[in-house]
Amino acid sequence: MLAAISASARVRGSTSPNPPVGAVVLDAAGAVAGVGATQPPGGPHAEVMALREAGDRARGGTALVTLEPCAHEGRTPPCTDALLRAGVSEVHFAVADPNAVAAGGAAVLRAAGVRVEAGLLAGQVARGPLRAWLHYARTGRPHVTWKYAATLDGRVAAADGSSRWISGAESRAEVHELRAVVDAIAAGTGTVRVDDPQLTARTPDGGLADRQPLRVVVGASEIPATSRVLDGVAETVRIRSHDPDTVLVQLAARGVVDVLLEGGPRLAGAFAEAGRIDRILAYVAPTLLGSGPAALGNAGVSTITEAHRWTVEGVTMSGGDVRISAVPARVTGGS
Amino acid sequence: MLAAISASARVRGSTSPNPPVGAVVLDAAGAVAGVGATQPPGGPHAEVMALREAGDRARGGTALVTLEPCAHEGRTPPCTDALLRAGVSEVHFAVADPNAVAAGGAAVLRAAGVRVEAGLLAGQVARGPLRAWLHYARTGRPHVTWKYAATLDGRVAAADGSSRWISGAESRAEVHELRAVVDAIAAGTGTVRVDDPQLTARTPDGGLADRQPLRVVVGASEIPATSRVLDGVAETVRIRSHDPDTVLVQLAARGVVDVLLEGGPRLAGAFAEAGRIDRILAYVAPTLLGSGPAALGNAGVSTITEAHRWTVEGVTMSGGDVRISAVPARVTGGS
Repeated sequence: MLAAISASARVRGSTSPNPPVGAVVLDAAGAVAGVGATQPPGGPHAEVMALREAGDRARGGTALVTLEPCAHEGRTPPCTDALLRAGVSEVHFAVADPNAVAAGGAAVLRAAGVRVEAGLLAGQVARGPLRAWLHYARTGRPHVTWKYAATLDGRVAAADGSSRWISGAESRAEVHELRAVVDAIAAGTGTVRVDDPQLTARTPDGGLADRQPLRVVVGASEIPATSRVLDGVAETVRIRSHDPDTVLVQLAARGVVDVLLEGGPRLAGAFAEAGRIDRILAYVAPTLLGSGPAALGNAGVSTITEAHRWTVEGVTMSGGDVRISAVPARVTGGS
Repeated sequence: MLAAISASARVRGSTSPNPPVGAVVLDAAGAVAGVGATQPPGGPHAEVMALREAGDRARGGTALVTLEPCAHEGRTPPCTDALLRAGVSEVHFAVADPNAVAAGGAAVLRAAGVRVEAGLLAGQVARGPLRAWLHYARTGRPHVTWKYAATLDGRVAAADGSSRWISGAESRAEVHELRAVVDAIAAGTGTVRVDDPQLTARTPDGGLADRQPLRVVVGASEIPATSRVLDGVAETVRIRSHDPDTVLVQLAARGVVDVLLEGGPRLAGAFAEAGRIDRILAYVAPTLLGSGPAALGNAGVSTITEAHRWTVEGVTMSGGDVRISAVPARVTGGS
């Protein structure tokens, strides 16, 4: 299953609106016979790729898949058919398909006499490569990661607006890797006017990454025609509303599942207030400025009891910076 | 040496301006014969306490001490004399004494035929129980820890000024433990007027801790006579200047070695600008406010290249909060 997760991670960003799934087929003796991952929309799913590589060795073997195999005919035939035709006798999948149309694969396989086990490394898959897609499948909304880099005293720029670089080289490289696997990067018109970001994914040598996310400029204000975000090296769309749900509906209509929100404070505040941030990724640099803007603007909070509550899911060092990942706190009751 | 470090940690806060030292005496067979730590000023030093407990078993034994034994007569006789009189044949100490008057203990012992080794767990001692005192011995200034609790978006209070509680119960308990072992807690007049903190060390049940630090109110403005900091449960001093060096000189004159700076932004900014913060202890709560004051006020920085640079020395979770400890970045050259 770890190999299947690895395979799925490698195709992250190229499959939306389909899920980035990984699959491994073992032969009857338990040796790896094939590894596959979801191909771009319209192309084969992970199971089919792994079965192709396995060929006859799949017969009597086991398939390990990060997501429950689909049982419906979409642009490609159901994966359950492919698994049955190949003659696998066991299927282990990590996460059940929350999508009502595609679900039921487990039942179809069991009815055909295949031994099916669910849940292997489910948490790792659900928090990892399938996170954004599972959110999208459950809510119909793209998954939003709000990423920012701030100083220890909570500033995203100095008093004069300068902000290159708040975070260190390792953090910036990490962000470029993340940009290369999301479907879209969104920034407000204010950020575009003030910081003029290119919103591209770059490699460590400064070149453009092979894959570029959709660039999204949010807000009604005009931006200069000379803005770097309009430089044509990647697709850019304008969404002339700050309303998070309007933005997300328009992005979903374009097949966007995984969005990175990169600024500025007003846009992030609107998303926070609407409860439309699904993950915070904060790079806290060990520097002090003592003045300058904060990462988040008005989020509808006027007193401390109204604060938006989150849960830290991970803290690591990124070079000299502290990288904090947080998810919305769940209100828990009872035990 | 670990037992000596533990012993020293237990007396932290009760020994200033003397260092909180720990000592363990092993008998000739290597069994623990005595454990001791520095007593309050005028009382015996750690070595003497451990030797007393060891009695005759110290002869031919080994003393492990967190700091180089003193060779000078202060309010108590030199510890080197006590070690020689007890007949120990080996002395291991962690950290050399940086104090020109007290230093030279190692040489005195060696001249008397004792085997002396330095450096065992020196880093752990220097970053731990002896940290503040070593800073004080080297610079003549009390060691300043700036502690603050902020939200992920860098706010220390909501827009209406409410701030109870930004951080969680575990973080607040940790801060009270820290308050109980520092010599002084300093806050600005603005914080006293607005938040009316008591600046005491409290136990988990809400009672006053046995030891209370000196409470220091910094700044020229008046504070209400009804301020909780003037409630008489612990000593309070006024220092009518925001100049960090004026504050530190006055505190040093009172035997203060270890200061906790707890607010507000203006005072912290003045200390940051003057380079008089020796450690940052930040409790970052996973909440978002979107408005409200930041932890640090003007620190003399107008553009990003002038930012004060720090190095993260530790990141841990404190309940649901992220606890970041940082020290001033050293400018390094070459390898």
